[in-house]
Amino acid sequence: MSAPPQQLESYLCGHWRRGEGVETELVDPVSGVVLATASAKGLDLGEALAFARRHVQSGLRGMSYAERATLVGAIADVLAANRAKYEGFAIANSGNTKADAAIDIDGGIGTLKYYALLGAGLGEAHTLVDDKPVRLSRADNYQAIHLMLPRRGVAIHINAFNFPSWGLWEKAGVALLCGIPVVAKPASATALLSHEMARDVIAAKVLPEGSLNIIIGGAGDLLSHVTADDVIAFTGSAETARRVRGHTNVVANSVAVNIEADSINAAVLAPDTGEGAAFDAFVKEVVREMTVKAGQKCTAIRRIFVPADRAGRVVDALAAALGRIKVGDPRREDTGMGPVVTRAQQAAAFDGIRRLMGEAAAVCGGFEPPALDGINADKSAFVAPTLLRIDDATEAEAVHEIEVFGPAATVLPYRDEQEAAVLVRRSGGSLVASIFGEDRNFLAWMAREIGPSHGRLLLVDPAIAAAHTGHGIVMPQCNHGGPGRAGNGEELGGLYGLRFYHQRLAVQGSTDLLASLQASAANLH
Amino acid sequence: MSAPPQQLESYLCGHWRRGEGVETELVDPVSGVVLATASAKGLDLGEALAFARRHVQSGLRGMSYAERATLVGAIADVLAANRAKYEGFAIANSGNTKADAAIDIDGGIGTLKYYALLGAGLGEAHTLVDDKPVRLSRADNYQAIHLMLPRRGVAIHINAFNFPSWGLWEKAGVALLCGIPVVAKPASATALLSHEMARDVIAAKVLPEGSLNIIIGGAGDLLSHVTADDVIAFTGSAETARRVRGHTNVVANSVAVNIEADSINAAVLAPDTGEGAAFDAFVKEVVREMTVKAGQKCTAIRRIFVPADRAGRVVDALAAALGRIKVGDPRREDTGMGPVVTRAQQAAAFDGIRRLMGEAAAVCGGFEPPALDGINADKSAFVAPTLLRIDDATEAEAVHEIEVFGPAATVLPYRDEQEAAVLVRRSGGSLVASIFGEDRNFLAWMAREIGPSHGRLLLVDPAIAAAHTGHGIVMPQCNHGGPGRAGNGEELGGLYGLRFYHQRLAVQGSTDLLASLQASAANLH
Repeated sequence: MSAPPQQLESYLCGHWRRGEGVETELVDPVSGVVLATASAKGLDLGEALAFARRHVQSGLRGMSYAERATLVGAIADVLAANRAKYEGFAIANSGNTKADAAIDIDGGIGTLKYYALLGAGLGEAHTLVDDKPVRLSRADNYQAIHLMLPRRGVAIHINAFNFPSWGLWEKAGVALLCGIPVVAKPASATALLSHEMARDVIAAKVLPEGSLNIIIGGAGDLLSHVTADDVIAFTGSAETARRVRGHTNVVANSVAVNIEADSINAAVLAPDTGEGAAFDAFVKEVVREMTVKAGQKCTAIRRIFVPADRAGRVVDALAAALGRIKVGDPRREDTGMGPVVTRAQQAAAFDGIRRLMGEAAAVCGGFEPPALDGINADKSAFVAPTLLRIDDATEAEAVHEIEVFGPAATVLPYRDEQEAAVLVRRSGGSLVASIFGEDRNFLAWMAREIGPSHGRLLLVDPAIAAAHTGHGIVMPQCNHGGPGRAGNGEELGGLYGLRFYHQRLAVQGSTDLLASLQASAANLH
Repeated sequence: MSAPPQQLESYLCGHWRRGEGVETELVDPVSGVVLATASAKGLDLGEALAFARRHVQSGLRGMSYAERATLVGAIADVLAANRAKYEGFAIANSGNTKADAAIDIDGGIGTLKYYALLGAGLGEAHTLVDDKPVRLSRADNYQAIHLMLPRRGVAIHINAFNFPSWGLWEKAGVALLCGIPVVAKPASATALLSHEMARDVIAAKVLPEGSLNIIIGGAGDLLSHVTADDVIAFTGSAETARRVRGHTNVVANSVAVNIEADSINAAVLAPDTGEGAAFDAFVKEVVREMTVKAGQKCTAIRRIFVPADRAGRVVDALAAALGRIKVGDPRREDTGMGPVVTRAQQAAAFDGIRRLMGEAAAVCGGFEPPALDGINADKSAFVAPTLLRIDDATEAEAVHEIEVFGPAATVLPYRDEQEAAVLVRRSGGSLVASIFGEDRNFLAWMAREIGPSHGRLLLVDPAIAAAHTGHGIVMPQCNHGGPGRAGNGEELGGLYGLRFYHQRLAVQGSTDLLASLQASAANLH
């Protein structure tokens, strides 16, 4: 008999603590081997929040933005120094290819570095100033300004399984820059990487005590200890999002909640797009979105809108490109796509594909485990790249409602521009859409039509066909979040992302007094 | 027998419609006479929302900000032309003095005019641009900008009974400027003025059909018809706020909700404030806040923090000034304060005062109806100006938790600056606090200490002791809303107030394409 797998611990109240029993097994989705176990059962999460609130008073809160930016940069340095070993965790526990792992790991480090730089620019200030002073009456010595003051509570970050690194750090970096201590709760199934990174950062002692806390295991009664000073940022399923947002204590205390949830994102090929850079970029990007991280990105393309007269050509091009992707063990150099993270996720993806096939035809892939050399289909969690096709997009329903969180997407033909806009909006709010074409007037028109249903748009004309950063990659400079089904959240987006962790405050007073408040604050614009 | 009172109608789907039966009687709080009745029972609110969404496509949405600003200005003109008669409704249905009525009526008209002017400055644009373009990669022809696009749904405005005019128009003006049709639901008890104003505006045909809709009566199943494109702005009690925010359909669709709820606002007298302009302004403002609109303002001062060594002098000065306020029928010219709006509100205020008196002593007033010349205490809804006093502020609990929505406030002594800040924050989040004193360093220090628990601060030093606009008056230039108990909302605040009705959108694309989007948008800053 081999030794039982390692139980991962949580870092709370300044100590690594072990929960009772086993809540979740962390598994290698290629072999089915249990890598570790997680449980936060029995840990006092209320005391953990209180500890963080107490300790931050003497630590983070007294620092300037620039001082905290240095800390954020120091986290990035610790992670960069240990980068090599993280790749192994991502491959083993998430089934990532090296390229997938890089998006997660380097995406996290890059976002930290971006905010370290941005925060340094805020200098020695302890508050931010938003907008110019305004007069309020005829008296010219009486005015108002709007300050942004860091909130006094903790930031609770509940993250999704698909980005154990990026999800942790894109949230923590912004909160710490604002002086808000973090209580992170990564998804248990893939927490091996989050846990290892947190261990390294905490061991390096680059942060004041109480600044970074991590729960490895279930959230338990965490939300019933939240106060009005705290904030909650959640990334995950719409169903869990509803439980967070509707939680009695969260509602009763008007706790600020930011949600990034499911979203059925679209890519649109403009009418009259000939063979050329825009068409090629479209095909390349759809394939990349379907297969990177085995399609497990909340931003991934799920619906592929093409002019009806080009549907056949697009389907052929996508099928050919998908056929060239080698699916298998991500430890092999020639593997282009690995498994999804768990067998439960595999089952959910198959279920979704099966439901979509009530109205769509499969061009390739499907809802059966693919036969792969040297892989045991009864232990592993592979889903084949699955391209579906619908002939009448206006009649379809499931394709606008069901998010298959895996390497699957559906081609939908549209007849004219108006119909395309209406169809894109039928997802009820999405994180991102991309539009590819040669006609800039169409790109601009479509952006205005579908914009209110999105948090981000990527408009690809031939000038940037080779230069853009991708449909699904979340750049820290850009808003991340979308309305409606996507959760109506707003993260990142440069300095704008700091707003969530601040209270906006109008200050009315004498011109001299406001001038002194303004002089000691950093400008948000 | 006299004729039965008039049943007020709702304006929905382009028609005035009568609900079934009587849900609420609208009463004169001086005499108890029933002035009108209200019911929205049996009206199809789902169809009303759908009608507004449909019609706005051909109306408001196609206009520029400047065109819509003209409409907002036209509403103000219609109201100004009819101003004289509104006062009578405010006096009869709300028990307002003329001065109270002016705050509500002229406050509404003034806010409309302010946004008409602000909107005109946005010109012929249909979108707003937020922040400067940013580079995303080494390629200098690939960038991102952030646009703000008007949402595509309706704005549901649920308002409180204390501001039937201002509450209606401060919300509607901003939404209409953004191209969002309004479905307003004033509190039934004082809806006579809202109803009359809406009648005038609709009869004047200054707005495209479907832009302004009003429910006079209960909200029924309104919230179950809300979609992800809609927004909800609510002002009222914390209890109802919880029902709105936690509503299953609202949570499921991630509907944007803005809440202005209860709040136990503070005024603070700085240590070492001598006799002089700041001290006098403090006493004058507390008395005004306690008595204007009989203390029925969500922004009114409820807790009066004074240095322990000055508590006696402050109590004496306040009691003397309150003693000079003549309470009675607001139709009499010498009346300084009228009744609260209903006997139910009177009972709630008495209940609150009774509970506060478990830990506080009454200096004047109390929880019995005052004896007033020519007023029937069994029919009317008067509450005497009630000043309470607590000796040990740190031991007190109820005073930080119970909002008496009437002419009552409590004096609390503090020993030092730190204690003052801690005590102010114990309300768990407030709309506004004011700080009075001669020492600008103290004012600035206190602003930073209590700022994160507030949406607005008024800092009164001697320079503006006579010039400031008041603790409780909400200026449209300034943020209105507060964290935690106050609902964590943000309204008004100049152009910032438009954000709630827009979707923030990152657009990534070629520099030329973004430049064209930017050129056609108005700048938010």
